[in-house]
Order: sequence, then structure tokens, then C-alpha cells
Amino acid sequence: MGDKQIPDIVVGRLPIYLRTLQRMTQDGRQVTSSQEMGERLGISAAQIRKDLSQFGEFGKQGTGYQINYLLSQLREILNVDQVWEIAVVGAGDIGSAVARYGGFSNRGFAVRMIFDNNHEVIGKQIGCFTVLDTSELIPVIQQAGIKIAMISVPASQAQEVADQLVEAGVKAILNYAPISLNTPEDVYVQYIDPVIHLQRMTYYLE
Amino acid sequence: MGDKQIPDIVVGRLPIYLRTLQRMTQDGRQVTSSQEMGERLGISAAQIRKDLSQFGEFGKQGTGYQINYLLSQLREILNVDQVWEIAVVGAGDIGSAVARYGGFSNRGFAVRMIFDNNHEVIGKQIGCFTVLDTSELIPVIQQAGIKIAMISVPASQAQEVADQLVEAGVKAILNYAPISLNTPEDVYVQYIDPVIHLQRMTYYLE
Repeated sequence: MGDKQIPDIVVGRLPIYLRTLQRMTQDGRQVTSSQEMGERLGISAAQIRKDLSQFGEFGKQGTGYQINYLLSQLREILNVDQVWEIAVVGAGDIGSAVARYGGFSNRGFAVRMIFDNNHEVIGKQIGCFTVLDTSELIPVIQQAGIKIAMISVPASQAQEVADQLVEAGVKAILNYAPISLNTPEDVYVQYIDPVIHLQRMTYYLE
Repeated sequence: MGDKQIPDIVVGRLPIYLRTLQRMTQDGRQVTSSQEMGERLGISAAQIRKDLSQFGEFGKQGTGYQINYLLSQLREILNVDQVWEIAVVGAGDIGSAVARYGGFSNRGFAVRMIFDNNHEVIGKQIGCFTVLDTSELIPVIQQAGIKIAMISVPASQAQEVADQLVEAGVKAILNYAPISLNTPEDVYVQYIDPVIHLQRMTYYLE
């Protein structure tokens, strides 16, 4: 378990800082400042300094941050100085896109397997994966020791899949199904539902 | 522009309440309570009552909320008592999945067109759309009067696409590319990057 004293909203900004710093190194950059990061992200420099200072001293007033050092520290804090294997459940359009997505590999994650319960899909090839039968989910995930899963099944099946994942020992679920899940307290759930994001913007439109 | 006095974090919870209520009506339900909603969502009943009370009086102590009435009020508040047309830019795996996604139609949105800059993709059929050339994006979106777009191009192209969308009059962007965008103040941007969600959970794991 992480350090509970740090607000989750601060934790939520760290991956965004990490992504920005990774982008800077791709551009060949070596040093940055909270001002520059703030301008890129639309977050105040003071906020960034305050967030980072909760975890340690990463830069000096006036000289900025060594990008590589800050990157390695953030990776360690977020536990992505390792590669986490992921099981995807649901091999429809979204599950397939996720299984083929090239953007996980240098950010701490690797899709390892994909499941579906449709007998026309089981056994088919998606990217470099053969689709497995959801009925084998629990033993397969247990044996692989996988702790992270993504759910990309229809909303009506998502809670049942989540229950199976929990039984299999999964501790973090990224849910693409448009429904809120009930899980034990020690299982983390995050949601991706494009409509939720869109409606948050239409509130301000017209 | 919306009512600026209401914190964005409260606005951000309204779509989740709306989704939960829609699900309840699908199950044939007519009345609910902040307690029941809270249990489904892992949010306290007091928080839900407080959030909703910022917009009006939607229920009575002891009798709960009429689901249909609260639904229609939330749709109006979020401006989804209409259908917003969406342009998708980037017809790769994610853009294609989004263009074919069936979950927009009863929640206030409809994909109207999809663009790509790859000449092997332009002109192809994705779902019921013929992929258009990104070089025609500005006049086509302007003429259609589209105000909402999704970006699903590689990170290296996302800012350029965002600039074109802004020029075309788009006011809300949902960005699937893993990069922060710079846009004018009156253009809203929301982000979907699965790695950001995953890293927010791995912080707590181990």
C-alpha cells in the first residue's frame, strides 16, 4: 500500500508529470523547470513544485530539474520501474485496440493475454495473442500471477467479470465498460468512458 | 458558458450520476435515493445530495428521487438533452473502435465523420463512415458546424490536429493521444490515456 498521507489527487497528477518528462527526453532535453512543465500542462508551477515536494527534493531553486533523475524517481514512486503484465477481458473493438496498442511498453505495462466468452472469437489471433476462453480466466490469471486487468466487455457483463478477476487475485482494474463496479476495498478501479468526459465538456458549451 | 460558481469537480460527477440513473431505468426502476446511488458509486449519500442541491431541488427527504425527472434535469444541466455531432481524427485502431462504438447514441452524442491523413486509409469504410482526408478537415468541420472532436492520432501529430480543430471552430476535444495539448481558453480538452489510469493504481500496489 502507498503512503496514505498523500492525497489521491496529487498521486493522479504524477503520471502526467512522468509522461511530460518522457516526452522531453524523446526531444533530447536534459533539464526542465516547474515553469516549463506548468506551461505545457496548464498547471501552475507552484502546484507542480508542491506536488513533487511531497515525495522529496528533486530540484534546486534556480537550476530546475534534471529530467532523467526526476523520471527515475517518479517511476519508482509510481512502481513502474518494472513491467506489469495485464490481462484484457473482452476482445471486441476496444479490447482488440488495447491489446494491439503500442503505447504501453515503455511506460511500465505489457498486455499478456486477452479473453472473450464468444466462441466465434475464442482461438482467433489479435495482434500477437490467441484469444482465450473467459471460462478459464480464474486459473489462468492466478497461475500467471497477473495483478492488473482491463475490462472491455458490455456493461451487462462487467460486474461478473470483475468478480472473477477479484477471485483470480487481480488488484487493479481499468474498466472500459460504462458501469460502476463494486469491488473489495483492496482492489483499485479506474474508469474510461468517453461519454463521461464528453458530458463534462458539454456542460460548459452552447 | 456554464455557471462558473459550481466547482468543476462537482460538474465531473454529474455524468456519473446520469449514467447510474440511466442504468436504473433500463432495469425498470422509477425511484431511487442518495443512499442507493451512493452504494452503487462508492460516493457518500451526503456528497450526492450536496452535489445535486447546487442545481436545484430534485427530491424530497424520505421519498427519494423520481428517476425520470432527475434524468431529464441532469440531461438539461449537462446540455445532452440534444445530440452533439462528433468528428473523429485518426482512423487507427482506437479511432475505428470509437467510430463504431454503439454507446454514444442514447447519451447525447453521435459520431458524424472520421478523418485520416494516410492515403491507404482515406476512402475506406469504417462502420458506416468513409474515411475523409485530414487535409479537408477545416472546411468540412466548419461547414457541418461540428463543435466536438476526438483526436486519435499519434502523439507527434496531436497538437497540429488540435490547432486545425480549433481553427475549424471546435470547442471541445477528447484527446486519446498521450500528450498534453495547448488550446485557447474557450476550448475544453479532456484526456483518455490508459497508462495514466494504470499508473495511478500501481502507486498503491505491491
